[in-house]
Amino acid sequence: MAVLLLGGVVGDDVPSMTTTFNSVDPRTGEAGPAHREATPAEVRAAAAAAEEAFRSGALRDREARIALLRGAAARLRAAGDEIVATAQAETGLAEARLRTELERTAGQLEAFGALVEAGDYVEAVIDTPDPAAKPIPRPDVRRMLVPIGPVAVFGASNFPLAFSTAGGDTASALASANPVVVKGHPSHPGTSALVAAELEAAVRDAGLPPGTFGHLAAAGTEVGQALVGDPAVAAVGFTGSYAGGRAIFDRAAARPEPIPVYAEMGSVNPIVVTEAALRERAEAIAEGLTASVATSGGQLCTKPGVVFVPAGAAGDAFAADVAARLDAGEPSVLLNERLRDALREAVGRLEALEPVRALGSAPPAGGPGFRHQPAAYRATAADLADAPELLEEHFGPVVLFLSYASGDELLAALARIEGQLTGSLHAQPGEDVAAVVEALAARAGRVVFDGFPTGVAVTHGMQHGGPFPATTAPGHTSVGMTAVRRFLRPVAFQNAPAEALPPELRDENPLGIWRRVDGELTREPL
Amino acid sequence: MAVLLLGGVVGDDVPSMTTTFNSVDPRTGEAGPAHREATPAEVRAAAAAAEEAFRSGALRDREARIALLRGAAARLRAAGDEIVATAQAETGLAEARLRTELERTAGQLEAFGALVEAGDYVEAVIDTPDPAAKPIPRPDVRRMLVPIGPVAVFGASNFPLAFSTAGGDTASALASANPVVVKGHPSHPGTSALVAAELEAAVRDAGLPPGTFGHLAAAGTEVGQALVGDPAVAAVGFTGSYAGGRAIFDRAAARPEPIPVYAEMGSVNPIVVTEAALRERAEAIAEGLTASVATSGGQLCTKPGVVFVPAGAAGDAFAADVAARLDAGEPSVLLNERLRDALREAVGRLEALEPVRALGSAPPAGGPGFRHQPAAYRATAADLADAPELLEEHFGPVVLFLSYASGDELLAALARIEGQLTGSLHAQPGEDVAAVVEALAARAGRVVFDGFPTGVAVTHGMQHGGPFPATTAPGHTSVGMTAVRRFLRPVAFQNAPAEALPPELRDENPLGIWRRVDGELTREPL
Repeated sequence: MAVLLLGGVVGDDVPSMTTTFNSVDPRTGEAGPAHREATPAEVRAAAAAAEEAFRSGALRDREARIALLRGAAARLRAAGDEIVATAQAETGLAEARLRTELERTAGQLEAFGALVEAGDYVEAVIDTPDPAAKPIPRPDVRRMLVPIGPVAVFGASNFPLAFSTAGGDTASALASANPVVVKGHPSHPGTSALVAAELEAAVRDAGLPPGTFGHLAAAGTEVGQALVGDPAVAAVGFTGSYAGGRAIFDRAAARPEPIPVYAEMGSVNPIVVTEAALRERAEAIAEGLTASVATSGGQLCTKPGVVFVPAGAAGDAFAADVAARLDAGEPSVLLNERLRDALREAVGRLEALEPVRALGSAPPAGGPGFRHQPAAYRATAADLADAPELLEEHFGPVVLFLSYASGDELLAALARIEGQLTGSLHAQPGEDVAAVVEALAARAGRVVFDGFPTGVAVTHGMQHGGPFPATTAPGHTSVGMTAVRRFLRPVAFQNAPAEALPPELRDENPLGIWRRVDGELTREPL
Repeated sequence: MAVLLLGGVVGDDVPSMTTTFNSVDPRTGEAGPAHREATPAEVRAAAAAAEEAFRSGALRDREARIALLRGAAARLRAAGDEIVATAQAETGLAEARLRTELERTAGQLEAFGALVEAGDYVEAVIDTPDPAAKPIPRPDVRRMLVPIGPVAVFGASNFPLAFSTAGGDTASALASANPVVVKGHPSHPGTSALVAAELEAAVRDAGLPPGTFGHLAAAGTEVGQALVGDPAVAAVGFTGSYAGGRAIFDRAAARPEPIPVYAEMGSVNPIVVTEAALRERAEAIAEGLTASVATSGGQLCTKPGVVFVPAGAAGDAFAADVAARLDAGEPSVLLNERLRDALREAVGRLEALEPVRALGSAPPAGGPGFRHQPAAYRATAADLADAPELLEEHFGPVVLFLSYASGDELLAALARIEGQLTGSLHAQPGEDVAAVVEALAARAGRVVFDGFPTGVAVTHGMQHGGPFPATTAPGHTSVGMTAVRRFLRPVAFQNAPAEALPPELRDENPLGIWRRVDGELTREPL
């Protein structure tokens, strides 16, 4: 059987000590090609190469970084057919979704290229000297953000492209001049290898050292743990489960030199629907909610898992409508057997909770591969007091309705919810929803009005993060242009002669970037 | 004996279970007043009050925060005589230094008040919608930074004012609308109580809830550990030793909900002096270096601990000159017995290292209290290869000269240095020092040219931080206006109606702040 090495295919002559794992087509359950598990020596070599690339200073060349990001985007588009076909066979995700995701991935790389070109992301600050300042004279101080060092990136199961090998973590780390070592997700090793090969080629095309980008394939946790523990690694980007994220956070915190871990670990993304909103547009909300719950098999970090509806006939009818729409849907193909089993178990725990009842009546998913029937459940908001397990995340096409009898009951329930990526509200103009908005904003990174949290736009202001346990770093985002901030650290130059300053901090402002000079933002030279 | 309670004085009627500790005058070794150790119930109460104040939203009132910060500054100045006298008796620091520090502390509070008034620190970003965007329509996304929640602040031994109860951590946390609970440093409990009383009064004056600021006195580590572990606490600011910072970091990382710890733990602040600089201005550098090493008993996080000088006559003469100047200095009063003992032990370890020799000849410090004679030692840069212990921090008036025989030897030595708060370089115009500057910037938060790292100015661009082990959070600073960024997290509002938006994000830009709108910075309304 052919074995895919890091980014390439080799023959049958693999040494006998080699560990391999197979991709599996979740639509059929059938094994695909075997992939070789990276060895401890390969982990060390990838990290050391990244460190060498970092130390070389080659990535400081803005033009080279822009060329890398744009070149990678072009290469991914050019190789799109093969990448999408491979990703389909490894993830069971629909072709249209994967084509959109590929374009998003390429667009993201280009957007970070534009960010590098604009140059403002270094947050340049210049304080001119004041020898008369009290209580002590003020020197000339010039500060900017510089790259933090090699970044370990963990691919996500559910976004084989946009949150994986060339995804947002990789793009933002490279844009901010940090080498990257990716630990590919074992659920789509062939996709990861194809994308890695394009990135490696883009690195070569841009004239950057090979250590700029490294790729490790692994099915076990050892490779990831070794990578996080490697002394050359300066930060970690991760998208995945709570268990996985927490394990990586703990490993990083236990290092002799702890490093920041930016782990995005999902959430239940509460949605609140008001009585007035149901009166005006129950059907449109039901249609949108059904799509948001079931799209991509419900395997999105921002999938709405808990929906608060008013107690009474309107809320009951709305929940029943959504349940019927989910019943009418085909069983979703899930990403892999482990996730399917985990979802089954989590749904089993949910069904076993005393106050919960199932709303739908579709039979459990049959068919080949790893499938789960979209389904809705219900309980009351008041039940959260005794059954906090109602807030467990169900990573799949499952939603729980919680009915609230009053505004106070709703607010009390929201107060029990931990850190979230998103919180959403469907209300009518003129309704007094200030307290609900406040409660959502207090625990979520993004508050969505009259819409659904899935489909995260990549923009300057997008926030994809939130208080723990949604992430391990509430002050940051993994989507949007400010994602670079995770992989940067400030350096100040005090009384530096012009020739010792990076261009961003020189009097003449050769790059024409925005700078804070004596407290005021300006693009003017000094 | 009178006992100081949290922020006040009570009589002798303390319950028998109460634990007390005494301040000690380090100039004499004599015990001062007793202070009561906070109880676990008081820790919980302070954290719960902070949480309640946070949830009340009262701190979101910009005018109230500005009033609090300015009021606190005015009150500290008005109470300056008593505060300075108390701090003198508790720290042994000189009156002039403490008066400067008091003014710095007040000025810092006012500077953060001005930051709140300007309002830009929320980093507002607005992306207008684009229904035609590919691959998915772009919603209206508006993002700003919001407060993270109650902040635990640990007072520092060496800055009883500027890095303690009303110091930079407290000022930046309050400015960013977070309540603060201070764990006062046991080395200056009376000072801390006086300052806390002024802050509590300023909170009342500003009409803010009492939980806005809380103060806990403690000599043991239990109070601090309990505070860091309290579920209400959302972040930690710390300035102190590596052991203390690491213990707090580890405690926070082990929580069910880990929280960010911004611990500044000091460093050896390497200085490089070139042969040409010595030729031109050896005496001026020696004078400045001596002051930087010995001022405040050398007990500054930015004290230069290691100075690289060229091997040969000029470097030898320079080191001998500094040693003679230190010899001529009076023994320094150290902050407390523990620090004095720790310094003695560390110096003992240094003296026991094979390549090290003492340069001075002054006798060990005599006299009452806790004193240490300023002293210089030397070894070679090459010795670092076999004796990394040479880079141990000596928290006191002690400096180690390391002679380098070549530029390569210097760079090899710099490469062995861990994360630093600062790195400094004395060179002459025209010298090719690019590699040295790069090596310093690669491991330090601030690079100082032809000057000394002590005397950290509070400006917009100041960076007081650095890679581990200088701090636990290389992406942030504890001095300067961007210190607020530690205690903020982003929230995005998607498709929000105007009335649901905070003023910072409304079309009309009522606060006139700078915002990034569709990628461009502007103060214009939409």
